Amino acid sequence: MKKIKELQAYLKEQQLDAAFITTPDNVFYVSGFDSDPHERLLGVMVFPEAEPFLIAPKMEVPDVEAAGWIYETVGHADTDNAWDLVAEAVSRRAIPLKKLGIEKSHLTVERLELLKSSFEKAEIVGFDDQLNQMRVIKDESELELMRKAAELADYAIEVGCREIAEGKTELEILMAIEFEMKRKGVYMSFDTMVLSGPKAASPHGTPGDRKVQKGDFVLFDLGVVYKGYCSDITRTVAFGEPNEEQKVIYETVRKAEQAAVDAVKPGVLAKDLDKLARDIITEAGYGEYFTHRLGHGLGISVHEFPSVTATNEMALKEGMVFTIEPGIYKTGVAGVRIEDDVVVTKDGVEVLTKFPKELTIV
Amino acid sequence: MKKIKELQAYLKEQQLDAAFITTPDNVFYVSGFDSDPHERLLGVMVFPEAEPFLIAPKMEVPDVEAAGWIYETVGHADTDNAWDLVAEAVSRRAIPLKKLGIEKSHLTVERLELLKSSFEKAEIVGFDDQLNQMRVIKDESELELMRKAAELADYAIEVGCREIAEGKTELEILMAIEFEMKRKGVYMSFDTMVLSGPKAASPHGTPGDRKVQKGDFVLFDLGVVYKGYCSDITRTVAFGEPNEEQKVIYETVRKAEQAAVDAVKPGVLAKDLDKLARDIITEAGYGEYFTHRLGHGLGISVHEFPSVTATNEMALKEGMVFTIEPGIYKTGVAGVRIEDDVVVTKDGVEVLTKFPKELTIV
Repeated sequence: MKKIKELQAYLKEQQLDAAFITTPDNVFYVSGFDSDPHERLLGVMVFPEAEPFLIAPKMEVPDVEAAGWIYETVGHADTDNAWDLVAEAVSRRAIPLKKLGIEKSHLTVERLELLKSSFEKAEIVGFDDQLNQMRVIKDESELELMRKAAELADYAIEVGCREIAEGKTELEILMAIEFEMKRKGVYMSFDTMVLSGPKAASPHGTPGDRKVQKGDFVLFDLGVVYKGYCSDITRTVAFGEPNEEQKVIYETVRKAEQAAVDAVKPGVLAKDLDKLARDIITEAGYGEYFTHRLGHGLGISVHEFPSVTATNEMALKEGMVFTIEPGIYKTGVAGVRIEDDVVVTKDGVEVLTKFPKELTIV
Repeated sequence: MKKIKELQAYLKEQQLDAAFITTPDNVFYVSGFDSDPHERLLGVMVFPEAEPFLIAPKMEVPDVEAAGWIYETVGHADTDNAWDLVAEAVSRRAIPLKKLGIEKSHLTVERLELLKSSFEKAEIVGFDDQLNQMRVIKDESELELMRKAAELADYAIEVGCREIAEGKTELEILMAIEFEMKRKGVYMSFDTMVLSGPKAASPHGTPGDRKVQKGDFVLFDLGVVYKGYCSDITRTVAFGEPNEEQKVIYETVRKAEQAAVDAVKPGVLAKDLDKLARDIITEAGYGEYFTHRLGHGLGISVHEFPSVTATNEMALKEGMVFTIEPGIYKTGVAGVRIEDDVVVTKDGVEVLTKFPKELTIV
């Protein structure tokens, strides 16, 4: 419960009487309990001194304890008013809430109103930044899990490459990958993408019944969740010999990606990484076909802080983990994206995903 | 764009100058565009008279149009301030926003603050109820999709039953089901559950490496998404001859489920259905082991209105679709749940899921 202690210190320092954590990923981060509560209330209330409590649907209470939560758990049945139970748990602690932290980027307006009616006298402030700042720096135990998640993603790409063959559909290749991953006991961190030929040129296409053909680029974008932590990898491979422009596009993306990876170290600004990759693609004449940011943070969520965009002035710090994933999507010619997961180390970078990036011809 | 017209009529009647729809499922409901925007802004702004617009990440704009959206689409790049683009789109329509509807159950406190700073003079009100009321009544075209989704769920249970054999793990059975469903081109509506023996007694367990054994109950809980609409079915089957108490528990759940299904018709209160099933289970001496509500609404979301609980006084109306899913979870003895998807018809009920409910012994 190291994260709880960190939060308690923060509350003391900020003179907050309590903080209510409601994002499921943040609940997992501080408690070890991983759950999607759908529309039901799930949250952790932390106080500077008093015992924290976790509120969850009643039927999940045994799972909360099994997950290693050592403090009070409040279970609410579907017939309970969960907010009354929150108010009661606070009042049992006899703490007047004058200043209460919430996650403004997660709590809904409806829930804010319910919270306000329970704690009429409390000033309500956002403390999202604190959780973001904690989560953005991964400690060694988190990195261990992410290395394993990346290793499994590398293996999934290998499986995908093995499956490419004349007559196979995108979906068949995708199923073979997911089947093998489930056999390993892990879930995918998002819907696996296997896009071929013209479909690879749409950065958010959907895999379907299209059969892969000689001359196609096949784009894999996938990731797994290992003990709560995500990986996210993209590789684009050629099925049969690619034509000249396809090769140029591939090499351009590869150079842009590698340049950004090589530039990662503490102190570099996120926007400079984006610029480095984007300039290489623009100079090659494909700037207009690189239509998204360079990357996104990765951890418990598959998209988290930091966002690696052309405008993010944030300086990289040791322990940050994010993706680097430039792409060129030129309709009728080629869709290529290459994505790695990287960690900022003390003086450089550790690349978690290791599947080769030289153009693989299957 | 029938739903847009319905909303426009509602705005006129309520004297709302605009309404901003941000729940992805509601965006799909009114626009046909189905997308998970992650942390990016996705929304539809509707006005009483002026042309509505949809704001989405720039790279998804072609998909918005392909989905059949015939009005303006505003694309925002990761480097844009999406909220400025919303304000500009509103100001192009020269409509003073004095009263603006939001989805209080979805819009976050952070986004509310951004919206308020764009439209300082607007009174902001929740209009969630209107969307809920529209969505809770399914029209014939929606029911057609839900029938198909249920048919596929029935088939998935059939596949699961075929896979049960000595030495097979829960995960292997689960993979066979999902493999077959993907081959049919559909996604699961939630993580498929295959729980055996003692694990079936945990209403939210996770499938794993446990091998099914003679004397086990095997519980399947699964659903598919067909063209945006969900099914959700649970069946519990016996592997080998069950013992006496297992049989009693199964028959109790079956009777409770059937009684509730048979009672469905317009005018009946949701809570009465819950009571009917719960009383049967309580009279049999298992009341304490039925730890959740009777059911939940189903449609674009796998959990939506109406919630079928002991306290919901809502009267059923023609066109409502929900699950009926009583269960008994007695540790060390048996975990049984039976779940159907039902539609309230003009004078009774249509059961969408058709897999047999007599105890199946595999």
